[in-house]
Amino acid sequence: MDRDELVRYLDTYLRLKDFPQDLSLNGLQVEGKKEVRKVGAAVDAAEAIFQKALEEGVDFLLVHHGLFWGKPFPIVGHHKRRLELLFQGGISLYAAHLPLDAHPEVGNNHELARALGLEALEPYDVGVKGRFPLPTPLVQVADMLGQLTGMTPLVHQGGSDRVETAVIVSGGAAGLVEKVEADLFITGEPKHSVFHETFERGLNVIYAGHYDTEVFGVKALARHLEARFGLPWVFLDHPTGL
Amino acid sequence: MDRDELVRYLDTYLRLKDFPQDLSLNGLQVEGKKEVRKVGAAVDAAEAIFQKALEEGVDFLLVHHGLFWGKPFPIVGHHKRRLELLFQGGISLYAAHLPLDAHPEVGNNHELARALGLEALEPYDVGVKGRFPLPTPLVQVADMLGQLTGMTPLVHQGGSDRVETAVIVSGGAAGLVEKVEADLFITGEPKHSVFHETFERGLNVIYAGHYDTEVFGVKALARHLEARFGLPWVFLDHPTGL
Amino acid sequence: MDRDELVRYLDTYLRLKDFPQDLSLNGLQVEGKKEVRKVGAAVDAAEAIFQKALEEGVDFLLVHHGLFWGKPFPIVGHHKRRLELLFQGGISLYAAHLPLDAHPEVGNNHELARALGLEALEPYDVGVKGRFPLPTPLVQVADMLGQLTGMTPLVHQGGSDRVETAVIVSGGAAGLVEKVEADLFITGEPKHSVFHETFERGLNVIYAGHYDTEVFGVKALARHLEARFGLPWVFLDHPTGL
Amino acid sequence: MDRDELVRYLDTYLRLKDFPQDLSLNGLQVEGKKEVRKVGAAVDAAEAIFQKALEEGVDFLLVHHGLFWGKPFPIVGHHKRRLELLFQGGISLYAAHLPLDAHPEVGNNHELARALGLEALEPYDVGVKGRFPLPTPLVQVADMLGQLTGMTPLVHQGGSDRVETAVIVSGGAAGLVEKVEADLFITGEPKHSVFHETFERGLNVIYAGHYDTEVFGVKALARHLEARFGLPWVFLDHPTGL
Amino acid sequence: MDRDELVRYLDTYLRLKDFPQDLSLNGLQVEGKKEVRKVGAAVDAAEAIFQKALEEGVDFLLVHHGLFWGKPFPIVGHHKRRLELLFQGGISLYAAHLPLDAHPEVGNNHELARALGLEALEPYDVGVKGRFPLPTPLVQVADMLGQLTGMTPLVHQGGSDRVETAVIVSGGAAGLVEKVEADLFITGEPKHSVFHETFERGLNVIYAGHYDTEVFGVKALARHLEARFGLPWVFLDHPTGL
Amino acid sequence: MDRDELVRYLDTYLRLKDFPQDLSLNGLQVEGKKEVRKVGAAVDAAEAIFQKALEEGVDFLLVHHGLFWGKPFPIVGHHKRRLELLFQGGISLYAAHLPLDAHPEVGNNHELARALGLEALEPYDVGVKGRFPLPTPLVQVADMLGQLTGMTPLVHQGGSDRVETAVIVSGGAAGLVEKVEADLFITGEPKHSVFHETFERGLNVIYAGHYDTEVFGVKALARHLEARFGLPWVFLDHPTGL
Repeated sequence: MDRDELVRYLDTYLRLKDFPQDLSLNGLQVEGKKEVRKVGAAVDAAEAIFQKALEEGVDFLLVHHGLFWGKPFPIVGHHKRRLELLFQGGISLYAAHLPLDAHPEVGNNHELARALGLEALEPYDVGVKGRFPLPTPLVQVADMLGQLTGMTPLVHQGGSDRVETAVIVSGGAAGLVEKVEADLFITGEPKHSVFHETFERGLNVIYAGHYDTEVFGVKALARHLEARFGLPWVFLDHPTGL
Repeated sequence: MDRDELVRYLDTYLRLKDFPQDLSLNGLQVEGKKEVRKVGAAVDAAEAIFQKALEEGVDFLLVHHGLFWGKPFPIVGHHKRRLELLFQGGISLYAAHLPLDAHPEVGNNHELARALGLEALEPYDVGVKGRFPLPTPLVQVADMLGQLTGMTPLVHQGGSDRVETAVIVSGGAAGLVEKVEADLFITGEPKHSVFHETFERGLNVIYAGHYDTEVFGVKALARHLEARFGLPWVFLDHPTGL
Repeated sequence: MDRDELVRYLDTYLRLKDFPQDLSLNGLQVEGKKEVRKVGAAVDAAEAIFQKALEEGVDFLLVHHGLFWGKPFPIVGHHKRRLELLFQGGISLYAAHLPLDAHPEVGNNHELARALGLEALEPYDVGVKGRFPLPTPLVQVADMLGQLTGMTPLVHQGGSDRVETAVIVSGGAAGLVEKVEADLFITGEPKHSVFHETFERGLNVIYAGHYDTEVFGVKALARHLEARFGLPWVFLDHPTGL
Repeated sequence: MDRDELVRYLDTYLRLKDFPQDLSLNGLQVEGKKEVRKVGAAVDAAEAIFQKALEEGVDFLLVHHGLFWGKPFPIVGHHKRRLELLFQGGISLYAAHLPLDAHPEVGNNHELARALGLEALEPYDVGVKGRFPLPTPLVQVADMLGQLTGMTPLVHQGGSDRVETAVIVSGGAAGLVEKVEADLFITGEPKHSVFHETFERGLNVIYAGHYDTEVFGVKALARHLEARFGLPWVFLDHPTGL
Repeated sequence: MDRDELVRYLDTYLRLKDFPQDLSLNGLQVEGKKEVRKVGAAVDAAEAIFQKALEEGVDFLLVHHGLFWGKPFPIVGHHKRRLELLFQGGISLYAAHLPLDAHPEVGNNHELARALGLEALEPYDVGVKGRFPLPTPLVQVADMLGQLTGMTPLVHQGGSDRVETAVIVSGGAAGLVEKVEADLFITGEPKHSVFHETFERGLNVIYAGHYDTEVFGVKALARHLEARFGLPWVFLDHPTGL
Repeated sequence: MDRDELVRYLDTYLRLKDFPQDLSLNGLQVEGKKEVRKVGAAVDAAEAIFQKALEEGVDFLLVHHGLFWGKPFPIVGHHKRRLELLFQGGISLYAAHLPLDAHPEVGNNHELARALGLEALEPYDVGVKGRFPLPTPLVQVADMLGQLTGMTPLVHQGGSDRVETAVIVSGGAAGLVEKVEADLFITGEPKHSVFHETFERGLNVIYAGHYDTEVFGVKALARHLEARFGLPWVFLDHPTGL
């Protein structure tokens, strides 16, 4: 498939223009081969991932966290090695940060919400708010998250044992602890500064990993491209434990 | 001891005026009894800690993380309960954030550096840079930190097995991973976004806990007040595991 | 009546969300008793007023000028005494600044405009613009204002003796002197810096007092709550002469 | 005397470069005749004052409040008439705002402080802090101010009957009420918003008029020019009552 | 014709309110005679142009570049002489910057586009994008521009010899070189910093002069006023060669 | 010579830390070969220049205008081709913008001033102010500049025929026309917006080309490196005519 055609499709499908507040330079960040034959999906943009992409023959790599975040930097050291790997493999790098958190079809949060069986989904920040069909034990939700992510989630139980409403914002959204009005808040990465507020506000929070809550979006997007354009794809896993 | 005299002493000793960049409203945050008889030391300002202070008869509470961080908020819910506890006990709340990270005598980082046996200390950001007398195995430094904090530190070994130079910035300073030039960087709280950079830059990082790296300053400050003014004190421990 | 129900009603009725530019932290600023039995209305939030509220058995106090204006401050000295009085009486403090200037039913300016007999009212800044049924002598308008407020207004006559169109913006809006296009501008507090411009632009301005032009809104709001919810109320008068 | 020579002298004498924070465009604002024969001194820049300057044959007018305050405006209506008067009389307009508040020899505040008999003067904001030789009754200070300015000052007595230390900041400095640490604060123009704080902080404040506290600087500066260069001068009085 | 009526007409016709981002203080900048008998049109506001306006008996001068650009300046030297000339002739100065670039009827860019025979015009930034009826040799477009402006345009040919789509943004818009997607970009003033990008992006750019591309709007506007109100007008030419 | 050693030397010699206001990301922008054998000097960073550097076997390229100016951009199209050329040749790119304008030994302006025979040099903005030994005809200075740069300078004679004092700020500094106090101002690139001001202020300005006034610094710096470290160098000329 033609690279520029694919980029135009993604820019539109992911509604990049609706996220001007995003520090991430969303869209095609590094230009690779003109012809796209194999898609890669990964959470982060890093040497180890680019190396795997190279080995897998990926020529179009979708990532959630790209290389550019509002400030230029010298192409020196690991910054240079990262680009060299991409250039060497003719690999295009395409980044979608908030657009891929918020997307109703392939976004991290809607994916996770559907996997947990939440209903009546509505947007919340760049995530989603929903409701379990029945009041569900908190430990059971934690178990489900553990199975979905393959890691043991951290549970801060400030509220009751059973939960009905839940807000999910993947990644590093712990700052929302002071605002969320729901029985349960699920996010990725914990933060010391909201620890006490969790318990004092009577909120349940499950931290299911920054990395581990953000594998869903890039995978779903790659599946979507496969379904639509017949492009084969591979997930390049590199958990951080964080 | 007179509260206002104590406040004037602390404001000067901790050089509050040298940290205009600090979001924290450093200094006396809540006014309690005129006469100070017992000092409390704690990392955070929260209901559970204020409750302990009340039970211990503390009337002057030193904290690293106070209540005010640049934006006003309504005195509602847990914000109100926090103040009620302080008012009830006539407890003064005194906060010192960056001034207590950076202080050469009682700061978190100098305390930690001396406990690890680092030498030739010099300021680095709000922390400290130093040198082990001999090249020291990374695992040995991690062990020492585990003993000092009582928790198991997270080690990201991007560099060599032995380290000589080290930078310490307690708390949530993971963002410095992209800048530190040393064999080892010790901070408190890990952050997903610098994971790959650690390894690509060849840096060793030990995360010894946000809470656990910041108990040193308030304790040292309380000891200092005891030595100087004969004020008894108590440490109000409430680990967050983060 | 339940405090939280009352707060929700007020937040909606006063359209707090439509005034993001307001420095005032509008809404419930301090949480008091769960059950509201008596409402107080006052222009300012201060010790003397809180003391009166306590004596009057008020448990929900409506003010135009609340405690929080964009920057946090230490709870020390009079700031602490203010909160102690509210806590002591279990008095909730509810602030509505610009929303109570601009409100078409209970706002300071619409109240004043109707009392002066102005017609064809339309919004102007956070105030109102209207027209007297007939050209009216300026001195007569000043007299009416004197009777309404009980103080002698300050008249700067830059224009003609009779006026037909008038703009009213209560409180401290003298800065609008350079913009208002009308025969008469009524505001509260004078300002040296627009003195000459008044006369050079040929504008009539009546200064009827910052305090005295802003008693109307809180009173009207309290009357509204009485009519709707049967809550008794009291006005806590504390003129400043300014 | 040559206009440009006079301007250079004033720019240096008044240290214009030391006040980059001043919104006022200090210095020569409008260029008049090359040869200066008569100096005018006035508080404000306005048609009525320029008319008097014209009648008095002034060709160099010193003002505390000039025409330009950070934003350009169209030369229309009274703005045009003001310039026309200056052009017609060949009158230079020279403005000195904060530099003339703060100046140790001819500044509004030092002038006022010396007239009140204050001693041990030191800078405070753009004003001055000093001490009466003996504790002095507040009413006596108010009387002195009344005699110096010819208007009746407004006294807000939040503190004790006798005062020793005093801060003076002429004009519109009421906002400092929340900070001043002294027995007495003297400024020009009152402000509703600090009324309660005055009494709650136990501060005495005397408001002696924005206009009336700012006639001292321009007069002293004109006297200084007369003494140094033999230039005759005239004070163009136009009180605003504010 | 009455000056104020004319100003109201222009303010509306040119939609001044739609250009809040414009640094130019658009609208009447200097007030002249009440009665307008002869209109002048010029690109710039300067002594030489005002002198010509005076000689021509102009009493209402339309300019693209006015006197006020966001910062006040002292009325000294040439700034004073400029105003004196306007005052002397009773000449009103009316400035329209971006509104006169963008206007669909009399704007610089639409005028130029129509003169070049472009079709299917649509707004682009404050200019216009269009299409030649047939692919047209670049040199032929440059010739047409040379005839329209009377100067030799500078051609930077980064693209092909024939062009179909073109973007026109008059004046100093070279910064758009990095964004324009068209066969040809026409603007006024060249800029060293985009030289290489022109060729590397494969763009054709014709620089037809800042002055020379901006005579069209003021002329068209004056013609429009003549047609509508019967006001005679004169173009005051003063090319800068830039 | 070792690349990193050379970078450290340049960073210090050019005092990069003294120019925090520079948008340019000064210093090593792209990392090339470890061993430096041949230096290139060029004004701009562009494909054509990198191609020449490649052909000349340059492995360390000094430029005045680098690739990074405060905002990141996608590595796409010509941005990618530029990096590919550098990577291909293992060419390091080192940028020095304002530090190379201002440097007293190798800066563009001091070089130019010495070549013109100016004396008593002192810093002015990022350029230099000096004095000809004798009043010199303006045309003669223009001739000298023509010979030094090989292009015909543009002369805007607003002042007298002979000049004694001169300010030089290379490149795009036409905005200084409104401030410079000297007989002559020499800069690179003209700007329409200061055309009239030049003549009204009575200033002489010579525009000697943005490119052509900025070849001096990189050449002088390369000569300095040759003298100090014995590194051969080549100038990569690519005039823009601007």
